[in-house]
Amino acid sequence: MANNDEDMLVTPWEVRGKIDYDRLIKQFGTQRITPDLKARINKITKDRHIMLERDYFFSHRDLDWILDEYEKKNKFVLYTGRGPSGHTHIGHLPTWMFTKWMQDKFDTRLYFQMTNDEKYFFDTHLSLDDVRRFTYENTLDLLALGFEPENTYIIDDIEHIDLLYELAVQVARKVTFSTVKAVFGFNSSTNIGSNWHPAIQAVPAFLHSWIYGKKTPCIIPCAIDQDPFWRVTRDVAERLGYYKPASIQNKFVPGLKEGGKMSASDPMSTVFTTDSPKMAKKKVMAAFTGGRATVKEQRELGANPDICSVFKYYKYIFMPDDKDLKDIEQKCRGGEILCGECKQILAPMMMEFLENHQAAREDVKDRVEEFSAARLRDEVRR
Amino acid sequence: MANNDEDMLVTPWEVRGKIDYDRLIKQFGTQRITPDLKARINKITKDRHIMLERDYFFSHRDLDWILDEYEKKNKFVLYTGRGPSGHTHIGHLPTWMFTKWMQDKFDTRLYFQMTNDEKYFFDTHLSLDDVRRFTYENTLDLLALGFEPENTYIIDDIEHIDLLYELAVQVARKVTFSTVKAVFGFNSSTNIGSNWHPAIQAVPAFLHSWIYGKKTPCIIPCAIDQDPFWRVTRDVAERLGYYKPASIQNKFVPGLKEGGKMSASDPMSTVFTTDSPKMAKKKVMAAFTGGRATVKEQRELGANPDICSVFKYYKYIFMPDDKDLKDIEQKCRGGEILCGECKQILAPMMMEFLENHQAAREDVKDRVEEFSAARLRDEVRR
Repeated sequence: MANNDEDMLVTPWEVRGKIDYDRLIKQFGTQRITPDLKARINKITKDRHIMLERDYFFSHRDLDWILDEYEKKNKFVLYTGRGPSGHTHIGHLPTWMFTKWMQDKFDTRLYFQMTNDEKYFFDTHLSLDDVRRFTYENTLDLLALGFEPENTYIIDDIEHIDLLYELAVQVARKVTFSTVKAVFGFNSSTNIGSNWHPAIQAVPAFLHSWIYGKKTPCIIPCAIDQDPFWRVTRDVAERLGYYKPASIQNKFVPGLKEGGKMSASDPMSTVFTTDSPKMAKKKVMAAFTGGRATVKEQRELGANPDICSVFKYYKYIFMPDDKDLKDIEQKCRGGEILCGECKQILAPMMMEFLENHQAAREDVKDRVEEFSAARLRDEVRR
Repeated sequence: MANNDEDMLVTPWEVRGKIDYDRLIKQFGTQRITPDLKARINKITKDRHIMLERDYFFSHRDLDWILDEYEKKNKFVLYTGRGPSGHTHIGHLPTWMFTKWMQDKFDTRLYFQMTNDEKYFFDTHLSLDDVRRFTYENTLDLLALGFEPENTYIIDDIEHIDLLYELAVQVARKVTFSTVKAVFGFNSSTNIGSNWHPAIQAVPAFLHSWIYGKKTPCIIPCAIDQDPFWRVTRDVAERLGYYKPASIQNKFVPGLKEGGKMSASDPMSTVFTTDSPKMAKKKVMAAFTGGRATVKEQRELGANPDICSVFKYYKYIFMPDDKDLKDIEQKCRGGEILCGECKQILAPMMMEFLENHQAAREDVKDRVEEFSAARLRDEVRR
């Protein structure tokens, strides 16, 4: 969804400028996650999650309905995914971590879609081998977070197209070029694969209902830039006999450079899960912060954590304890800590995280097949 | 490809008006099949086929190149297909009969694509069950013509999408909406499935080369209305590392009513392979001919076989002997035979054909699976 305001552009393929999340909610027509809704989730799960508490997940569609149905014993399935166009970076992980929390707390199934066809259609410099390789690499990152095969089904669009196509043709018949033009900003130069892809991305929202012949609610945890896909999916859902998928939508984890940009194409702004801990430290130490021009100014006026990329990593990933976070925030605002010192705190956290993650990534290498949606083939009704 | 001339419209989904085949050759940019080319085919096959002799197959792309390669021991594969939107009618069979002749004479493999996804996308009154049923029914008609499984692979688009998708995404990335708009006359209201389908229809032209890892020529026997698909396919072929598919293109078998219209939606104009012989006779007896207004006029001036639907059935299907055809043509032009008498000759031929065809259709019912392209799954390189 292109935006006339030059400051901000949020589409599934490009996020640019300073992100105004309030305006996104209005623009996309989603709902804010209210304190009441958070409290309700905490009550059901008997837990709390910092990404919800701290408004990393801030927006939703029909989350209240999902909880209503859950309490009526009509349990939902989870659906999220990844476009495997490159290596995973740290900014991709929070959505998956939160998804795992929901999976654990609600004891439900996750469908995870690797949209390698999409990435092949949109990034014309990528070969099929490239998107296949990144499908595998990204899968390792997902599994390193501790998912278990029993409730986790990874859908590889190209490899598992036989599971998707029959539903995709039904979606595609109900979506015109006008619609994808309006929703995604496609034009006459867009290739027919890209035009087609929204049908494929809609499918996992209906897959469980279709396979088991029982209308099942579905909620999609995802970054808000994917919302256009769910608008198209929701638009066709009821006409195909399914529930509209709900969603719970997160902000973007900022890159380590200035502003709201998260760019895998600027390697210094992004810590990849495959970076060496040493390289990650280097990136952290070069990060953009909310610091002042001189030490003297910072000591006197304090720094600004609200615009600081280092602080956001504490807030959304590395400082789950509210006390720790409050502490560093106060020191920052009060000028007690300089940005270099603050980065010296994040760097070892990031390094330790990467060391553990990379070890876990190695460990799952011989288990990838256990998670494959190919297992569903036996269950598909014929 | 829409045409401004109100008299004639030839697209893959609609054929309307009086067909000017010379103009179609010019408009589509194909080549006429010359006497030299026919002689060359006859020499290689040591046979002749009435559909070639009598210009039912009249147009081609790269047929001469296909024969060059054949003589250089670089044998081609055949590719044709059917959009299973309804029961087969007699007008569908000649292309398949000629394809079988080519398969036999050149001892080569046929890929036959059932484009049930296409028909589902375009005919929004059809359900998935409908196109599946017609896929089966049409397959019986194909097999009733005597194909053998060894060299015949029937591709069911939806059922065998796993064999097609990887090639289809490569085609789709190279075709824009502008192209399908210009070639097929699509517009903003066209659904994204219809826009996507040309990628799927391109695939069988490359499938053999892809599966066996050897660049193999392909020729498509088909009605000329399908040419737009092959223009798109040819346009991307070399960029994907394959030969451009050749084609050998036939005219339309006219309906039994006036003009060039062939309409399955007008049941009286069409003899379906599932019609009872009695019903077929009724349709033949009601057919449009080139007769005069009165018996007296016809005796004096003769009738006109050039516009007569009954005569075309003799010419292209039921009178393989040139002497028989010449004989009836002379009687017609000379006023020796009246149209009612002439129909009395066609009717039992049609009835006998249907009886035999329907018996053969029954016989193949338990052999359908033997022809399935599912057999190729074992051969696909991974």
